[in-house]
Amino acid sequence: MPNPNAAQAPVTVIGLGLMGQALAAAFLKNGHPTTVWNRSADKADELVATGAALAASVKDAVEASPLVVVCVSDYAAAHELLDPLAGSLAGRTLVNLGSASSSQARDTAKWAKDHEAAGYLDGAIMAFPAGIGTDAAVLLHSGPKSAYDEHEATLKALAPAATLYLGEDPGLASLHDVALLGVMWGIQNSFLHGAALLGAAGVKATDFATLATPLIAVVAQTVDAYAAQVDAGEYPGDDASVATHVGSMAHLLDESKELGVNTELPALFKAFGDRAMAAGHASSGYAALIEQFRKPSA
Amino acid sequence: MPNPNAAQAPVTVIGLGLMGQALAAAFLKNGHPTTVWNRSADKADELVATGAALAASVKDAVEASPLVVVCVSDYAAAHELLDPLAGSLAGRTLVNLGSASSSQARDTAKWAKDHEAAGYLDGAIMAFPAGIGTDAAVLLHSGPKSAYDEHEATLKALAPAATLYLGEDPGLASLHDVALLGVMWGIQNSFLHGAALLGAAGVKATDFATLATPLIAVVAQTVDAYAAQVDAGEYPGDDASVATHVGSMAHLLDESKELGVNTELPALFKAFGDRAMAAGHASSGYAALIEQFRKPSA
Ligand SMILES: NC(=O)c1ccc[n+]([C@@H]2O[C@H](COP(=O)([O-])OP(=O)(O)OC[C@H]3O[C@@H](n4cnc5c(N)ncnc54)[C@H](OP(=O)(O)O)[C@@H]3O)[C@@H](O)[C@H]2O)c1
Ligand SMILES: NC(=O)c1ccc[n+]([C@@H]2O[C@H](COP(=O)([O-])OP(=O)(O)OC[C@H]3O[C@@H](n4cnc5c(N)ncnc54)[C@H](OP(=O)(O)O)[C@@H]3O)[C@@H](O)[C@H]2O)c1
Repeated sequence: MPNPNAAQAPVTVIGLGLMGQALAAAFLKNGHPTTVWNRSADKADELVATGAALAASVKDAVEASPLVVVCVSDYAAAHELLDPLAGSLAGRTLVNLGSASSSQARDTAKWAKDHEAAGYLDGAIMAFPAGIGTDAAVLLHSGPKSAYDEHEATLKALAPAATLYLGEDPGLASLHDVALLGVMWGIQNSFLHGAALLGAAGVKATDFATLATPLIAVVAQTVDAYAAQVDAGEYPGDDASVATHVGSMAHLLDESKELGVNTELPALFKAFGDRAMAAGHASSGYAALIEQFRKPSA
Repeated sequence: MPNPNAAQAPVTVIGLGLMGQALAAAFLKNGHPTTVWNRSADKADELVATGAALAASVKDAVEASPLVVVCVSDYAAAHELLDPLAGSLAGRTLVNLGSASSSQARDTAKWAKDHEAAGYLDGAIMAFPAGIGTDAAVLLHSGPKSAYDEHEATLKALAPAATLYLGEDPGLASLHDVALLGVMWGIQNSFLHGAALLGAAGVKATDFATLATPLIAVVAQTVDAYAAQVDAGEYPGDDASVATHVGSMAHLLDESKELGVNTELPALFKAFGDRAMAAGHASSGYAALIEQFRKPSA
């Protein structure tokens, strides 16, 4: 079947897990001739039914398109797949969207250069699979600006509202990725801790979520204010003091003990607050805790 | 000067710190005849200039209104002020909006009953001072429903869009309070950790905030889904598996070590993820971590 939108650039997606399937589906939906490959071939079935071409080998997959997107579990898996066919990379641009450390991203950039790839971009997906192709998705890229500019239009199929370029250092996307994932886990973990605590008192997690969801939106607004204070190195205590926060942290810890749920998260929060107090920040604002997060652990 | 809106019920505010000043200002703005008292009297100056009556003693303050709102640092301070004049409480309703543990709230409810207060409500303010009187404020109350119903209209001056009643157990507001504050600290701490990490690589906190703020809003939306899974006791891994999360957590920990910032928060996140994997949840969704948060610490 000829592609109705043949002007769109062809693209290959290697790795069809939860995320890879969503990526390939978004490319297809945007009319890109899309070649796919996955170790367990059955994960390609739905995509093939909607127009994807299934490559017979990873080599065929790489050679099918000038832009090759890889999204497998980790960098070890990516190299296991690509190392044997580095010769096929020449002239193509590789985009790795799997999770990685920034040093792995830099190593892979060097490896791709050594094999005469036209370009290597390291990317990070700030979205769940269901968000891919919607305005909720954010995609971060780092590496050669020329490679990004060449393929930006294609990559935008994945994150139409927020396909972003961070800089030439290939490690930047991964570094931003983990910092942002940390914020996600920070929210989810503290929500789950609160759900465990209230659950021990007979309150349903869905009732807690009704209160927590609007609170999260309010706190999101304070992040900008604290960020400016962090950059300025000044933490005015004009909303609530560290001492006031630490007083309430003690209650969270006590309630957790009393109701018999895990205390590690509140204990760590209070430890950071206590350290800020000890450093002379009792009447500073909360952003003063940045100084404790900057210190290597004892 | 006669109050232009004399039909509004009179109210007393004891404690004029950052929060107490905002509370009294909101009552005044809504036309409530407002009596105030603070240990350091100068904090009343601005309020008196805008129409508040300054009581000469705590006793006078309590006796000035049928509704007495207390907002001092902690319960010890509240009792230090109120214990000597418990006799003046008879027939009045006391609302404590300072931070407390749920057992302190229950003790104070009993103490108020013993002194023939008309009612005791324990409250929790989910807002910063600047949010008081706006739609961003959420106020939680627990204690006798009759006392809440009688004063709801007055209390709504503080949180017009979300003045909420949680139940007869006076400890409920405090328990919800700390669980929600935990979510706030979870966001702020993980943001500050990420700002420290990216800061070590030369990225400004304000640039990080530009990416983090929309992410927080997206994650807020997932909280409802996870809450339903927690209540159902089933954690389908249809967005991202615990194994995928733990893989990325290892990167956050490694980057933190490599860039020489604090590792305690990522190490704790990974510990919870590792425990969920060990408990057989490698391919479950993230909400499976609830089981680890329920377990008392070793
Ligand atoms: N899911 C999300 O919400 C999300 C969000 C942002 C980023 N990511 C990142 O995207 C990447 C993939 O995540 P996912 O959720 O799609 O994970 P997943 O559902 O577990 O899929 C993993 C994929 O990697 C493949 N794979 C693993 N080891 C392999 C090997 N040695 N050789 C060949 N293929 C191998 C799997 O092939 P088989 O099918 O044959 O096992 C599968 O295609 C991860 O790095 C993750 O951090 C995911
Ligand atoms: N600020 C917020 O964002 C916020 C949000 C929610 C809840 N809260 C809660 O509201 C309460 C007050 O917080 P805040 O931010 O207003 O704190 P703050 O600015 O530090 O004010 C503390 C208040 O308590 C008074 N106080 C303390 N010890 C006292 C004592 N022994 N005797 C008499 N008065 C005493 C202080 O009087 P002096 O002026 O004489 O020192 C002052 O009025 C806390 O429990 C806090 O957890 C605050």
